[in-house]
Amino acid sequence: MSELAYLEESAFQTRSMTMFAVNNLPDFTPGMALGAEIINALTAQGESLQRGDILVIAHKAVSKCEGAMYDLDDVTPTDEAMTLAREVNKDPRKVEVILRQSSRILRHIKRPNQDEGIIIAEHKLGFICANAAVDESNADRPGRLITLPDDPDNSAQQLCTELEDYYHTELGLVISDTFGRPWRMGQTNVAIGVANVPTIKTLFGENDAWGRPLKVTAPAFADELAAASGLLMDKDAKCPVMIFRGLDWTRQHSHISQIIRPKQEDLFR
Amino acid sequence: MSELAYLEESAFQTRSMTMFAVNNLPDFTPGMALGAEIINALTAQGESLQRGDILVIAHKAVSKCEGAMYDLDDVTPTDEAMTLAREVNKDPRKVEVILRQSSRILRHIKRPNQDEGIIIAEHKLGFICANAAVDESNADRPGRLITLPDDPDNSAQQLCTELEDYYHTELGLVISDTFGRPWRMGQTNVAIGVANVPTIKTLFGENDAWGRPLKVTAPAFADELAAASGLLMDKDAKCPVMIFRGLDWTRQHSHISQIIRPKQEDLFR
Repeated sequence: MSELAYLEESAFQTRSMTMFAVNNLPDFTPGMALGAEIINALTAQGESLQRGDILVIAHKAVSKCEGAMYDLDDVTPTDEAMTLAREVNKDPRKVEVILRQSSRILRHIKRPNQDEGIIIAEHKLGFICANAAVDESNADRPGRLITLPDDPDNSAQQLCTELEDYYHTELGLVISDTFGRPWRMGQTNVAIGVANVPTIKTLFGENDAWGRPLKVTAPAFADELAAASGLLMDKDAKCPVMIFRGLDWTRQHSHISQIIRPKQEDLFR
Repeated sequence: MSELAYLEESAFQTRSMTMFAVNNLPDFTPGMALGAEIINALTAQGESLQRGDILVIAHKAVSKCEGAMYDLDDVTPTDEAMTLAREVNKDPRKVEVILRQSSRILRHIKRPNQDEGIIIAEHKLGFICANAAVDESNADRPGRLITLPDDPDNSAQQLCTELEDYYHTELGLVISDTFGRPWRMGQTNVAIGVANVPTIKTLFGENDAWGRPLKVTAPAFADELAAASGLLMDKDAKCPVMIFRGLDWTRQHSHISQIIRPKQEDLFR
């Protein structure tokens, strides 16, 4: 396993990082080459990628290029989808897509004050989220649903390798989606696919500043990156790619499955 | 309500932000002036604060200065604490402090392979987290437990006002803690107190890039900031204060209670 540490030295001897957006990316459609589009856009804004840079990419850009989408007109709902759709007042065809993307439904509810209810599902990839991450926002036309990529780690690795080859350097890449959370209002971006960056930075066995062991500290590095990307990745601005520069991280073979809490350890399913 | 928008123009006409650490802060003890220490440290590293900067501060720095701590030797556990402590194999005095900080215990479990179990509690302030955010890591000596500040919004506002007065400018401030999550491994920093920055950036009613309404998008801005701070705020490096520069945000009167999901809306309690 290749292990390389990246650390940017700043002019002020201070620990710092920058995050910037890749501007003027096109609307993505199936078959488009996302890597080439990122390279073109970066070149147009006078930027290139440097050793240790990490890209965070909103999954919709990846999903659209890969054609990970459904047209509602092509979907025939099963009886199970029809029943669930009635209970939450959703289009049965959308519920059918949610069921196809899910391994299990955890909760579904429609409150009297809601027009459309919510389905909390376990996605086939293990993520627990609303509507199995099936989304119609930012689809390029009505009646089209976007799903997660089929294999986000593979998408991340292919894209990262393409960019590493072009820039002759070593990079990391995270694919993100926007999830709600139990207990807390609002959404944050989380990682749904990774390449080269640690999913979790395990600090088991290290000591705190006073020498006492930090037993259970394991920062979810990929989720920290995803959440940070949301600070500039406004939904209405067609800005799905962020570059992080200056972070200290160790290159490794990582998998997004490392962030899924095993069912037997989970107290809230 | 004062509403001011901040947006840094970068040299590349690109959307970007920087985050940097305040270096060489001292070990904090009760009665120390956190604001003055931040100013001194920034001055020593040739930095000052600018209009629109946002500080994220790990709560332990605030809690220590405010004396939000317990010495185990001063704590007498109740019968309830003794019983719960036996079930999870924790020091009954620590469990007593957890109970004092909590309004309710949601789950407690000790698995056969665990030395010490876990208590998921609803903190008096509404946060749901492990051990009611009571922590012995980074306490300055064994037998001392650190709790959340009594009123984190008030702590954030006082500190922010002190820094605004000194630098004659407008700032935002978030106090953070490190929480685990259901369903996902690892921890991220979340906001537990805010001053001036939006807790949630409500995008209800706005349109996506294709003109369709974004019905339910409400980025948890304060949590995005907190999570991003973790990218540089390693636990072992005495680096509890991060500065964000270049973000677009609107000054407002905000409260951390805005991020607590109302119990009647929560599907996972």
